[in-house]
Amino acid sequence: MTIQQNPTNKAIWPGIAGGAYKPLSNHDIKRIHSTALDVLENIGIAHPTPELLEYALPKGCIVGDDGRLKFPRALVEDIIASTKKQIPYYGVDPKYDFEVSGESVYTGTAGEAVNILDYKTQTYRPSKLTDLYDAARMVNQLDNIHILMQPFIATEHSEDLYNHDINIAYAQLAGTAKPFTLSISQPKHIDPIISLFDTFLGKEGAFLERPFCYILGCPIRSPLAFSKNNLAVLIKTAQLGLPTDSCVASQAGATAPAALAGAMVQTFAETLAGLCVVNLVRPGMPMCFGMWPFITDLRTGNFTGGSGEEALIISAAAQLCNYYGLITSGPAGMTDSKTMDAQAGYEKGITTSTVALAGSNIISFYPGMVGSLMAQSFEGMVIDNDMLGNVLRVVRGIEVTDETLSYDVIKETVYGQGHYLDHPQTYKLMRSEFVYPEMADRRLPEEWQKDGSKTIYDRAHEKVKEMLSNYYPDHIDPAADIRIRDNFPIKLKPADMKPGNGRWDKE
Amino acid sequence: MTIQQNPTNKAIWPGIAGGAYKPLSNHDIKRIHSTALDVLENIGIAHPTPELLEYALPKGCIVGDDGRLKFPRALVEDIIASTKKQIPYYGVDPKYDFEVSGESVYTGTAGEAVNILDYKTQTYRPSKLTDLYDAARMVNQLDNIHILMQPFIATEHSEDLYNHDINIAYAQLAGTAKPFTLSISQPKHIDPIISLFDTFLGKEGAFLERPFCYILGCPIRSPLAFSKNNLAVLIKTAQLGLPTDSCVASQAGATAPAALAGAMVQTFAETLAGLCVVNLVRPGMPMCFGMWPFITDLRTGNFTGGSGEEALIISAAAQLCNYYGLITSGPAGMTDSKTMDAQAGYEKGITTSTVALAGSNIISFYPGMVGSLMAQSFEGMVIDNDMLGNVLRVVRGIEVTDETLSYDVIKETVYGQGHYLDHPQTYKLMRSEFVYPEMADRRLPEEWQKDGSKTIYDRAHEKVKEMLSNYYPDHIDPAADIRIRDNFPIKLKPADMKPGNGRWDKE
Repeated sequence: MTIQQNPTNKAIWPGIAGGAYKPLSNHDIKRIHSTALDVLENIGIAHPTPELLEYALPKGCIVGDDGRLKFPRALVEDIIASTKKQIPYYGVDPKYDFEVSGESVYTGTAGEAVNILDYKTQTYRPSKLTDLYDAARMVNQLDNIHILMQPFIATEHSEDLYNHDINIAYAQLAGTAKPFTLSISQPKHIDPIISLFDTFLGKEGAFLERPFCYILGCPIRSPLAFSKNNLAVLIKTAQLGLPTDSCVASQAGATAPAALAGAMVQTFAETLAGLCVVNLVRPGMPMCFGMWPFITDLRTGNFTGGSGEEALIISAAAQLCNYYGLITSGPAGMTDSKTMDAQAGYEKGITTSTVALAGSNIISFYPGMVGSLMAQSFEGMVIDNDMLGNVLRVVRGIEVTDETLSYDVIKETVYGQGHYLDHPQTYKLMRSEFVYPEMADRRLPEEWQKDGSKTIYDRAHEKVKEMLSNYYPDHIDPAADIRIRDNFPIKLKPADMKPGNGRWDKE
Repeated sequence: MTIQQNPTNKAIWPGIAGGAYKPLSNHDIKRIHSTALDVLENIGIAHPTPELLEYALPKGCIVGDDGRLKFPRALVEDIIASTKKQIPYYGVDPKYDFEVSGESVYTGTAGEAVNILDYKTQTYRPSKLTDLYDAARMVNQLDNIHILMQPFIATEHSEDLYNHDINIAYAQLAGTAKPFTLSISQPKHIDPIISLFDTFLGKEGAFLERPFCYILGCPIRSPLAFSKNNLAVLIKTAQLGLPTDSCVASQAGATAPAALAGAMVQTFAETLAGLCVVNLVRPGMPMCFGMWPFITDLRTGNFTGGSGEEALIISAAAQLCNYYGLITSGPAGMTDSKTMDAQAGYEKGITTSTVALAGSNIISFYPGMVGSLMAQSFEGMVIDNDMLGNVLRVVRGIEVTDETLSYDVIKETVYGQGHYLDHPQTYKLMRSEFVYPEMADRRLPEEWQKDGSKTIYDRAHEKVKEMLSNYYPDHIDPAADIRIRDNFPIKLKPADMKPGNGRWDKE
């Protein structure tokens, strides 16, 4: 492999390049691509809005007798070629900035769940705004999670969408200094959210100069139809020049063909439609290409996010998109298990490692998400952060150089000490070649038994309490916070945002 | 990808071809290979026995002034080229026969642990002969485990090695009709074991005509020394024409270089030495190439089998060996967790999926093994069998054909019913495109909660009791069993081998 440029002296770092796993041949890729263009040209996408048509018709799109918007092959090819192939991600704190390109791999939470899995009772309870703030504080402390993508909604505000959207924006901003994303379904909420961020920054227009938050949506309702509000959000973000992750979550066997190749064709066509929208509005605009084919368990019709088929198809999607140079996101780390057990472990392990190895750029990985995206587990976030350490180490690969081939080290050892434990090479590589997990147990069985035979889930619960009881980021200036609270209906109380609030320190 | 030949109409089958994950470049591979040949030619292997020298010296090997056996480059190259590239595996029942070649993937238990993890007490207890018989009965019922490789020893007989070896041979034969392997360290025990198998078959010499059991050992003590007894076993099996899996379990940072590339160089050289021994004794003989570089946690010196580094290096080893056409085994599915929790799940999921995707032929996978190979969990075997379903489905890949691209299916659906649930393609592909797990939970959260919020580990315990309380294979003919018991010190009592023995049906 090409030797990875390591900007640190650690064993893993953000932006390690994937791509060593290639489930498809180049011939397969071209056939999927070509059939997807047939779909866009001949079948097209239903329910284009007048707003979209104003952009699309002058560029050569056609509305058929069937009312569907058809995209000429050459237009789609031109847009794939001309869309920008790098996307900057800005942290609230610039130390978390990075630019995504090529096959570099970053990770984010995601999911938009509606529940929290309670560790003690093993039941699902509705997720609340304070949970979102807490999840944001977790992400800020978890090294292997690079973006806070909205993991769940604030269910107590779900009736009043304006209140909801303003408050999730504030909760995530208050909890993390990393780049973050929000899922917003009402275009009219975007300007107030930007105004909130400008208030935080102390200057009108400051946010769009360095946007630390991207606004996401799913502009397609599979099969092959636009979703009105999300399409309007997509157009609005493109108008603003805000990059987005336009994700299309079809479901093979239900809203996409059961044949995995066919599900790829349709989902590629659908995601390309989103890329076309963005580039029709603003030529050359980059977009994180969220081609997210999901899988149906055909015995029940239930969605399954932890299956082998899911690992395979999202890996193939990453490879397909990389072939055309697109910046991709891929939904890995889901599980159908309802709790953080061995099933959650292996389903998350398999989907995440394959997708990362295939070179998905933004692993819209679901740290802590359980129950087929129905609930978030705080303990799971801690466990999955550890797991990501293993995955990223695999993705990094093995550097083969004169030095690492170690002929002289072997010779010295064989004719010398007989083992490598004390060799200078071993000391030198101790931190740069090996990842040391924080939660994974590597003790002797006796030590584990003496410590109460705990599972990693038990230990993670202790860790969550430790991480959340005392860690309160303070990157919102108190004066700015007063201005924000004066201008927006902020529901998080200052008392919720400091020790003694009773959520994690009461136990 | 090349479309896989599916001999069944199921979604997965034994012998699916891997190879889509390639952690190394061809240039890397050639450099590792070349440096390993330097090691064999110049540093060589310590402690060659007189028996080995009789074979080795006439073929051009040299004993240096340092007493080490050096292998000329050309000899090693010739042996790599001329060793047979297929290995037949015979079931006790011929319906389990298969031949390993190319990048086809099969799985087996393995580990030689010394403990059983008790589900109820969460403690480790010594493994016994009846446990081995029970584990063999489990493998016979688990579809995704193709070979019973000896998972643990019978600790109560470990003082008397003859009794031990005869009894583990009998226990595994009695419990499974699949191909199996034994780890035997005394060459003088091999003839009696073969005699036992001949007695089972009712004819002297019958076993070697269709050997359903291969005898394994680790002929190398890293770094770069022969292990006397295991070397003698290797020579003996080669003399008999019995293929073997000669595995070399070095440990990067302790008995091999800390640089992963260097650990590969040394372990490749060591495993090649085993291949040379086999082919010096019997030219052209195939050998399962067990290049098993392990990893050390350098903070403690403990072995870690569940790390990202382990997944990476065994995947790279599989790719390296496949490049030279060697039939390989690879140690995946280990975990450092002491129990079957989320850590066990993700460590097993990551190592197993990457190694399978790299095309290791015999995944000497550790179903149910926990605690860095210290203990076997029966529940874990059931869980890992399910996990293997996901892994093998990923390895199979996506078939891209006119039919699977589904253009017409998409068109019919978009202009027709609007969903794919009832489409004839969906019905047709329901069983052949998708794997349905047996243990993994895909229910709705309410159903899971109503059923007691159990983990997969809890459900697996119920399953183990069901599988072991009533399933007693009867492929040993009663008359043959009497002859075996007359001639060998068989410790498993007939009462241990039928319902009511109190091991699994007492609860």
